[in-house]
Amino acid sequence: MPTEEDSNQYAEASMPNIEAEVDLEDSHRYPESNSLNQPLLKRNRTLSTNPLAIVGSKVSHIESLDYEINENDLFKQDWRSRSKVQVLQYIFLKWTLACLVGLLTGLIATFINLAVENIAGYKLLAVVGYIQEKRYIAGLVYLTASNFLLTLIAAILCVCFAPTAAGPGIPEIKAYLNGVDTPNMFGATVLIVKIFGSIGAVAAGLDLGKEGPLVHIGSCIASLLGQGGPDNHRIKWRWLRYFNNDRDRRDIITCGAASGVCAAFRAPVGGVLFALEEVATWWRSALLWRSFFSTAVVVVVLRAFMEICNSGECGLFGKGGLIMFDVSGVTVKYRAMDIIPVVVIGIIGGVLGSLYNHLLHKVLRLYNLINQKGKLHKLLLSLSVSLFTSACLYGLPFLAKCTPCNSSLPESACPTNGRSGNFKQFNCPEGYYNDLATLLLTTNDDAVRNIFSTGTSSEYHPFSLLIFFTLYCILGLITFGIAVPSGLFLPIILMGSAYGRLLGVAMGSHTSIDQGLFAVLGAASLMAGSMRMTVSLCVIFLELTNNLLLLPITMIVLLIAKTVGDSFNPSIYEIILHLKGLPFLDANPEPWMRNFTVGELADAKPPVIALCGIEKVSHVVDILKNTTHNAFPVVDDGVVPPVGLADGATALHGLILRAHLVQVLKKKWFLREKRSTEEWEVREKFTSVDLAERDGKIEEVAVTSDEMEMYIDLHPLTNTTPYTVVESMSVAKAMVLFRQVGLRHLLIVPKYQAAGVPPVVGILTRQDLRSYNILSAFPHLARSKSREKGN
Amino acid sequence: MPTEEDSNQYAEASMPNIEAEVDLEDSHRYPESNSLNQPLLKRNRTLSTNPLAIVGSKVSHIESLDYEINENDLFKQDWRSRSKVQVLQYIFLKWTLACLVGLLTGLIATFINLAVENIAGYKLLAVVGYIQEKRYIAGLVYLTASNFLLTLIAAILCVCFAPTAAGPGIPEIKAYLNGVDTPNMFGATVLIVKIFGSIGAVAAGLDLGKEGPLVHIGSCIASLLGQGGPDNHRIKWRWLRYFNNDRDRRDIITCGAASGVCAAFRAPVGGVLFALEEVATWWRSALLWRSFFSTAVVVVVLRAFMEICNSGECGLFGKGGLIMFDVSGVTVKYRAMDIIPVVVIGIIGGVLGSLYNHLLHKVLRLYNLINQKGKLHKLLLSLSVSLFTSACLYGLPFLAKCTPCNSSLPESACPTNGRSGNFKQFNCPEGYYNDLATLLLTTNDDAVRNIFSTGTSSEYHPFSLLIFFTLYCILGLITFGIAVPSGLFLPIILMGSAYGRLLGVAMGSHTSIDQGLFAVLGAASLMAGSMRMTVSLCVIFLELTNNLLLLPITMIVLLIAKTVGDSFNPSIYEIILHLKGLPFLDANPEPWMRNFTVGELADAKPPVIALCGIEKVSHVVDILKNTTHNAFPVVDDGVVPPVGLADGATALHGLILRAHLVQVLKKKWFLREKRSTEEWEVREKFTSVDLAERDGKIEEVAVTSDEMEMYIDLHPLTNTTPYTVVESMSVAKAMVLFRQVGLRHLLIVPKYQAAGVPPVVGILTRQDLRSYNILSAFPHLARSKSREKGN
Repeated sequence: MPTEEDSNQYAEASMPNIEAEVDLEDSHRYPESNSLNQPLLKRNRTLSTNPLAIVGSKVSHIESLDYEINENDLFKQDWRSRSKVQVLQYIFLKWTLACLVGLLTGLIATFINLAVENIAGYKLLAVVGYIQEKRYIAGLVYLTASNFLLTLIAAILCVCFAPTAAGPGIPEIKAYLNGVDTPNMFGATVLIVKIFGSIGAVAAGLDLGKEGPLVHIGSCIASLLGQGGPDNHRIKWRWLRYFNNDRDRRDIITCGAASGVCAAFRAPVGGVLFALEEVATWWRSALLWRSFFSTAVVVVVLRAFMEICNSGECGLFGKGGLIMFDVSGVTVKYRAMDIIPVVVIGIIGGVLGSLYNHLLHKVLRLYNLINQKGKLHKLLLSLSVSLFTSACLYGLPFLAKCTPCNSSLPESACPTNGRSGNFKQFNCPEGYYNDLATLLLTTNDDAVRNIFSTGTSSEYHPFSLLIFFTLYCILGLITFGIAVPSGLFLPIILMGSAYGRLLGVAMGSHTSIDQGLFAVLGAASLMAGSMRMTVSLCVIFLELTNNLLLLPITMIVLLIAKTVGDSFNPSIYEIILHLKGLPFLDANPEPWMRNFTVGELADAKPPVIALCGIEKVSHVVDILKNTTHNAFPVVDDGVVPPVGLADGATALHGLILRAHLVQVLKKKWFLREKRSTEEWEVREKFTSVDLAERDGKIEEVAVTSDEMEMYIDLHPLTNTTPYTVVESMSVAKAMVLFRQVGLRHLLIVPKYQAAGVPPVVGILTRQDLRSYNILSAFPHLARSKSREKGN
Repeated sequence: MPTEEDSNQYAEASMPNIEAEVDLEDSHRYPESNSLNQPLLKRNRTLSTNPLAIVGSKVSHIESLDYEINENDLFKQDWRSRSKVQVLQYIFLKWTLACLVGLLTGLIATFINLAVENIAGYKLLAVVGYIQEKRYIAGLVYLTASNFLLTLIAAILCVCFAPTAAGPGIPEIKAYLNGVDTPNMFGATVLIVKIFGSIGAVAAGLDLGKEGPLVHIGSCIASLLGQGGPDNHRIKWRWLRYFNNDRDRRDIITCGAASGVCAAFRAPVGGVLFALEEVATWWRSALLWRSFFSTAVVVVVLRAFMEICNSGECGLFGKGGLIMFDVSGVTVKYRAMDIIPVVVIGIIGGVLGSLYNHLLHKVLRLYNLINQKGKLHKLLLSLSVSLFTSACLYGLPFLAKCTPCNSSLPESACPTNGRSGNFKQFNCPEGYYNDLATLLLTTNDDAVRNIFSTGTSSEYHPFSLLIFFTLYCILGLITFGIAVPSGLFLPIILMGSAYGRLLGVAMGSHTSIDQGLFAVLGAASLMAGSMRMTVSLCVIFLELTNNLLLLPITMIVLLIAKTVGDSFNPSIYEIILHLKGLPFLDANPEPWMRNFTVGELADAKPPVIALCGIEKVSHVVDILKNTTHNAFPVVDDGVVPPVGLADGATALHGLILRAHLVQVLKKKWFLREKRSTEEWEVREKFTSVDLAERDGKIEEVAVTSDEMEMYIDLHPLTNTTPYTVVESMSVAKAMVLFRQVGLRHLLIVPKYQAAGVPPVVGILTRQDLRSYNILSAFPHLARSKSREKGN
């Protein structure tokens, strides 16, 4: 692994022609830039117009989403023609979709849980059988082979069918809801691979969770439902067309993400708050309620399923089920002096969390190098991690000493040989248990349950906890980047609970807080230290533990851990977003953006390409072929302003989308002479369904040379109400506007009013407003960047 | 009370000159307009420039708040000069204030609880004593007299010292956080009156709660802390100046509101969500976390206080304390068929809730007439309600039959004569209890606890519940509008729990849901049906009941009740906001706003008054004296645009605030000749503290005739980055921008580009964007208004 210094040198060496355009191939060639301050993709030092990002370890062209309402004549007509019944139909459908999202997410979560518990359960039972027969080598071989096989299935699915299904998917969902469309993220293939890949990877005993993937699964379901099925086999129901826009898709995907978190933790309020705090960029009160409805459906489904399973019809999936740690029966007691260990846990969580982020960042960069080399390398990497994990899980418990069972403990069975149970016998004689095997030779969920267990203060030897902690630190770093669906929640919970419990053991009788609660607090602190979520995490832990009395100390821990972590580096999701080069727009503008105007920014870009209200076909084709812009301002020349003195004025008519221009060319809606059209002419030709179509390519359109000489009236298809800023606006405020209203294009109008001044002086896109891009194009700004801004 | 038809006739008769300006006196004279679709204040049919609203039953001039960052040279300078230490100081102070808000709110909530429980407790003990001695008349006199006295104290405090302390205060807080500054809402007097008035009113046994007032108290504390003390005795600490702006005040008041809800229900997450869903208009992730911190502090304070009280040092304030209904120990069971009563409760809640809103609206209009007549009328109204309440509370239990105690019930003491307890003896012989006295002759909190009690299925006779329900329907309508601090939560909970429990009794053995849970669901349904909150209410009930298993059915009830209620009328808070004429900007624009441009809107307003960059003093004074505008666009003439062809162009420089103009005049920062100034010249004269001062009045400024001939350079004080829209922008999108970014003024720039076109064609304010105002000025739009919009 190259050191930071090395990689910096390399980065400089590999970038001799700073001004050169970097295209897809180039960025494939130089992905090795390892500086921690740069994303994996190189960009040239002008404002990027060709946005690239790494999606599923492949460099893809990404597009922004259009959350703005495109108010052109046709839209207004369509909207006006909607009857009351249609509006009710639309509202009803929205709620139905929210309900379906919850229902399906709940069912799939149930299926994943059942599959994982049964596969892993029978696997572990067999291993325990071998150990009881003292056939240790056979046990090792059996465990390693079955884990290898499960990992192989998961990895092959991911590598061959849906590379975007690897990893947690949460950063991409975050980016999507921020307004970045990452290709192939929400398809049917991804959904299926994610489900089965997640089952394989979790059942294989890898150090990863099903929580992150469940969030992605929820979003996939939502996206598929919203668009009426997979890309190739969409249901073309008439009323589904209302949902064929980025706005409604965003809303439903938010519901899906909330449902996913809810399904992962059985935390309905926590799920909604997670979507609100961590994922969603925009939020409305109505959406809050709809996503809450989705999560309630999930909870009902999970509850029904647990009722069924309690009667023993779910194989090895026993009672207790999804909730990992219910301490509602435990009386939480703490004294004023207990604040000290609580603060210590918070600080440790913050430090370790940011350290974990830092190291994981480096590992991900290294893995990226390996993954770039091809599918085989990806597979081999995943399988080596699986082999290492199996060997450690099986071998390490032999290091632990056998502990005699304590009959005073509430747990009745000791030692336990079944799959679940808190006192695993492993290699110990009757009446003794192996505490490390209790934590390692079990599913991750059970491991968490065991380490969280209360009233078992002398169960774990500090040495065992230390081994457990060290092992999961290593596994947590090396497992996340491999090509299988993997969540970050569980590895972090395992790591955190270990040091939490260790601290509890160290405190001994100096505290009245139970060791199990220490483990919970440790897990919470590391989550806050790495992911920097606060409110949603707090509520998730509240719902997980089902005990309100824990709330105040949980909050203190989270607050401290987040504050400490924030002083070192950004959250792990932000690091991944930056690493992948996804153009995520932050909530708060950088301080230097206040001293920098959009006019200066626009000067650094190529001049705006504007269209006339009635434009020649050849010109339109020309522009579409030679640019990649997704929207063009429409300007009328020689109009007479109602209040002005001079005629010959120019006027800003609005903004037309590339997709709509392509539609016009496809439908060959040309005029022989240069004239305005009536509304009915447009309505005859176009429906709003046509305009919702965004996939048209200019290359697919054939225009004859006769047609080239004809005209198009762009007025009816132009969005007449684009948001604008005056050129003297600061970038900071423009960014606030851009993000708050959910824009894709922001027009810059001149501050001067005179003949000859063009009515539009620039267009800003998401890429132009990202501080990284601006600082690349204007290096002098970076100097003032050192100054911090008050929150 | 006049019927609706009568009042409409009256309204038309009283408005002969529709075009006449309505000033403060006029609106005092015609407040009787009783049409349900109009606020109490009359307005003329042009877009209002003189905004009035009813604040504490008095018509006041209200102003908008300025949440936008005023980016002028001085601000930039001030911001640049902030050192890292100052930034840290600022952040630290923000968190300290959040902590202090929580601490003080918690302490005051504790104090109110203690005072109420003890005053009401000793009062009720004495009454019970009289009844045991069979001195019924003496008991009635004692109860009535003490209630009368307590109401008198509360009402006198409210009427004489702080009229704005009457009512819940939540609508005004909602309006404040939406951007409307209602005068005298957050002062020290209001805080004190609210605290003692609330104690008096609640202890007097009136049908009102301390929950709403607690939210107001939290906000008052936050506001006072943020500005460094009461208006007249502010602490002038240097670092408090950072908080001397509307933005930071808004944030801290949001924390205060969340703390208030948390203190009322001991629901930290519910408090934050209430602030998020119901109160706040803007929201940031950082604010979410800070308000959560405040509520955590509240919980810690309340918990400490309950620990102390459990040892019996709080007089009659016993254990159980603040949490009203903890069913964490109850096993919640429900079957699939239980969905039917749950749905029925939801529907009843929605219907009754909207009916309550409708009737309360009428009662409030009637009360407004009475309250307008003077202080004595206000007092008399409050006292009559008190007398009626006392008579009913004391007299009605005599209608109920005595029930023999059931020894199988879990409650050990029966009958109870102490203040708390579930089986009041009242006039019954030993071994019998009076179920109606259990509900009526107690504090409201205890009544809720008694009616919520689980495992007591045969305790209440349906007839008693019916009387209870009828009584609280009447009291709930007549009590809310009187001149004491009153919350709406508790009356609605009491009403709702009554019919919930009634339904439970009616279901009998057909359901497995406990009657106490039916009461909880009934309360939740009426809350949702009247207040239309959903997520926050759900979480508040979750935290109140401390039982996650109730969540799914609570959600179903809330969803149904809200949906049913929404189909009849808006939420009670919206009704009150509209009634008071507070210019609240809704989240969703009306559908007809899409077809209406800001240009058309601006044409209906008087022409914009623009200032030149270097302006004559006399002109500035003239404009300030003759207009009430709070900001003026600054336009430069005869500039040479860098890209234009012609010189003599005009340019939009920005927007200057009236307050800053007044400051310039006060400081007499005049120039002898017409020239531009340097930055240091301004910095010598002005600090950002001066500019934060908003209270200057032009009438207080004396300018000599010599000075009148001098010039002012407005450039350095002008906000160069105001948000703008092009005149072709639809009102709908302009409103979204206005609300999302938190504006006070929105400039309209022309779509035409030519010599002679002014660079600014209009200014929009909050009043211009309210649908009520637009529809008054453009009656033809109302026709298309009938069309509904999809959510």
